[in-house]
Amino acid sequence: MGNEVPRLYAADVTFVIAEKQHPVFGRDGDDLELTIEIPLVKALTGCCLPIPLLGGEKMELKIDEIIHPGYEKIITGQGMPTTKEAASRGNLKVRFLINFPTELTDEQRATAVGILGDSSS
Amino acid sequence: MGNEVPRLYAADVTFVIAEKQHPVFGRDGDDLELTIEIPLVKALTGCCLPIPLLGGEKMELKIDEIIHPGYEKIITGQGMPTTKEAASRGNLKVRFLINFPTELTDEQRATAVGILGDSSS
Repeated sequence: MGNEVPRLYAADVTFVIAEKQHPVFGRDGDDLELTIEIPLVKALTGCCLPIPLLGGEKMELKIDEIIHPGYEKIITGQGMPTTKEAASRGNLKVRFLINFPTELTDEQRATAVGILGDSSS
Repeated sequence: MGNEVPRLYAADVTFVIAEKQHPVFGRDGDDLELTIEIPLVKALTGCCLPIPLLGGEKMELKIDEIIHPGYEKIITGQGMPTTKEAASRGNLKVRFLINFPTELTDEQRATAVGILGDSSS
């Protein structure tokens, strides 16, 4: 009994790969998603934002147009490397969380009506 | 054969109640949900909005505080009648879709920086 060698049977080995969530980027297939907080004034007047990239570098993203809730900027080729083609990568989708002021004085409100009264509908 | 009366057996009758979607209100249990579009200037400077109610009436909702993306106003007792208590009703949750201007002149941008520069972070 003590000399018996245990028999080995051929069987499938299943690897379960759990993907760890990245602290900065979300993932949607080959695309990466990034949410940036910006103050309302930058959303309205344009901004130049440092955008972290997957490799650790940063790029400057210059936006001149108005950033409204739901606005999305797509940076092509800065997503995940795709499995199909070696040199091909998905995109990086940048979304925005617009921070509003918590209060405005009567004077600030009056000025806001002056500049926004006819432009937002 | 022609005179045989068909036999009737006792059986469960199942009523499937499909709820028709209301054109104005969404529903979350006993609560009703309503989304109102407002221009950015009203979100920043306060507004008095006509709110449709389930019975067909309207009420005036006065909001003095700043309406930021994600802001929700709860009007108690204007939801669905609850099934448990005859006189009890759920709440009406009012949400807001803030319409931003599509463009601002350089002068409007400069004024926006003047009033929002220190107030939004």
